[in-house]
Amino acid sequence: MSKQNPFDQKKNAILQEINSIGPDLSPKGTIDRLCIPIIDLINKSPDMVTTSSCSGRISVFIEGTKAIDGDIKVGGKGEGGKWLFVSHELDEVDNWFQRVTEKEQITWEVDADSIEVYPDGSSRMILYKYEPFILHVKCRDFETASRLYNTAMSCGFRESGIGSNFIVAIRINIKLDVPIGYVDENKGTLKLICNPDYIKVLDIMTKAKFSENSKKMDQLYGKIESEMILKVNEVSKKENHTESKEARRERKRREGLEKQRMMKEQT
Amino acid sequence: MSKQNPFDQKKNAILQEINSIGPDLSPKGTIDRLCIPIIDLINKSPDMVTTSSCSGRISVFIEGTKAIDGDIKVGGKGEGGKWLFVSHELDEVDNWFQRVTEKEQITWEVDADSIEVYPDGSSRMILYKYEPFILHVKCRDFETASRLYNTAMSCGFRESGIGSNFIVAIRINIKLDVPIGYVDENKGTLKLICNPDYIKVLDIMTKAKFSENSKKMDQLYGKIESEMILKVNEVSKKENHTESKEARRERKRREGLEKQRMMKEQT
Repeated sequence: MSKQNPFDQKKNAILQEINSIGPDLSPKGTIDRLCIPIIDLINKSPDMVTTSSCSGRISVFIEGTKAIDGDIKVGGKGEGGKWLFVSHELDEVDNWFQRVTEKEQITWEVDADSIEVYPDGSSRMILYKYEPFILHVKCRDFETASRLYNTAMSCGFRESGIGSNFIVAIRINIKLDVPIGYVDENKGTLKLICNPDYIKVLDIMTKAKFSENSKKMDQLYGKIESEMILKVNEVSKKENHTESKEARRERKRREGLEKQRMMKEQT
Repeated sequence: MSKQNPFDQKKNAILQEINSIGPDLSPKGTIDRLCIPIIDLINKSPDMVTTSSCSGRISVFIEGTKAIDGDIKVGGKGEGGKWLFVSHELDEVDNWFQRVTEKEQITWEVDADSIEVYPDGSSRMILYKYEPFILHVKCRDFETASRLYNTAMSCGFRESGIGSNFIVAIRINIKLDVPIGYVDENKGTLKLICNPDYIKVLDIMTKAKFSENSKKMDQLYGKIESEMILKVNEVSKKENHTESKEARRERKRREGLEKQRMMKEQT
């Protein structure tokens, strides 16, 4: 058996993992249902393999302690931060508030006239988030990574980028990041800072974002299929038929250089 | 005079633009004050040039019409979307609500019991946003772009990526994206869906984010300086002193290949 190059080895290992029965390495342990079609499509290409994905999700998060060594650290999860709720399903958007409340047995404080958040920003906020689809794809070479990057950008995934080892992150900016309450450290209670109607507005906005997100995923699927699966197949068929000796030599030389660069990149 | 390569030509044109007295091509027309140190630092490198930047900002945005040809388009700006307020200054965070209200002569509707957002998500929402620092840097070659990408990632700019033409986007995820109201199309009024205390909470969170953002910018400045300006200078000094004939030939060959690749990329 011939020795596989590092990309092919990695791809095989990932495909085995995807096809295995046990849980994967993500917190949820499985691939999001809505990601499966695009993952299967991309993995059909000999030059790409998906490495991580999220189909889009809502979550409710309590920040951890942000005051560390007299300094306020904002933006990270903080010490002791905790997800109260995570769902990837459109039909779990309605009534998430009731579900969180029951599951976590929360008695919310609701007196709107006594909101007392620390002015230095160190209060542990309770955040409602919508995060859209994200996908990481390892590519065989820079050329493939560039083509995938351009394809994603042309569908509106404007926060995409190529990272280390020709891994392309495909990202779009349709988010919600909304404070709904905070931890009252004196009373040891959770304080709500918005009313039920505000939460209904969040639900309506979130459902619209779910729908927009799935439209963008479909668009991306179509564009990857036409630009990177069908077209590449056609080109390689054509090349096989018409490639001259010189063209073949030049292609082999180019592939060799790419391979060298990739192996250097991986060490 | 010798002919400049495309990167050097582009860099010179950008530096002339930056140093010119007239307004630049951004909506604001000038570089954000807080970006100037890091822009100056990066432009000291012969292999990098900054192409766009934002130091971080708050904004209030009214979405445009989202119902287009019977379809709801969420996430974009919509037809007729409008910024009511944009500021890059920490000391304009407090009282933004009063300022927007006065400047736009808004009489907010505040009856919390009559929130009527269209259930299909087509209502034109009024959004309060905090968006952090973002910077685009064009690099001479993939090697420089990779090094800059890795430097940014190591400082927590986890949404960074390399794009077309070796342009690195440096991004971090400390955002707020919060609905505060909507356009009541029947009454032709702007409806507020949160109370003054909620807005105070937004102010406190925003100020903490401004402060975290400027810490991260400082960290990035330090890391770029040590990894990409000082270290590279040392290496090139060393190379100039000790480079053998063979090493020089190899370096020139490598640089030639890079240049070829870059020129191909640019056409």
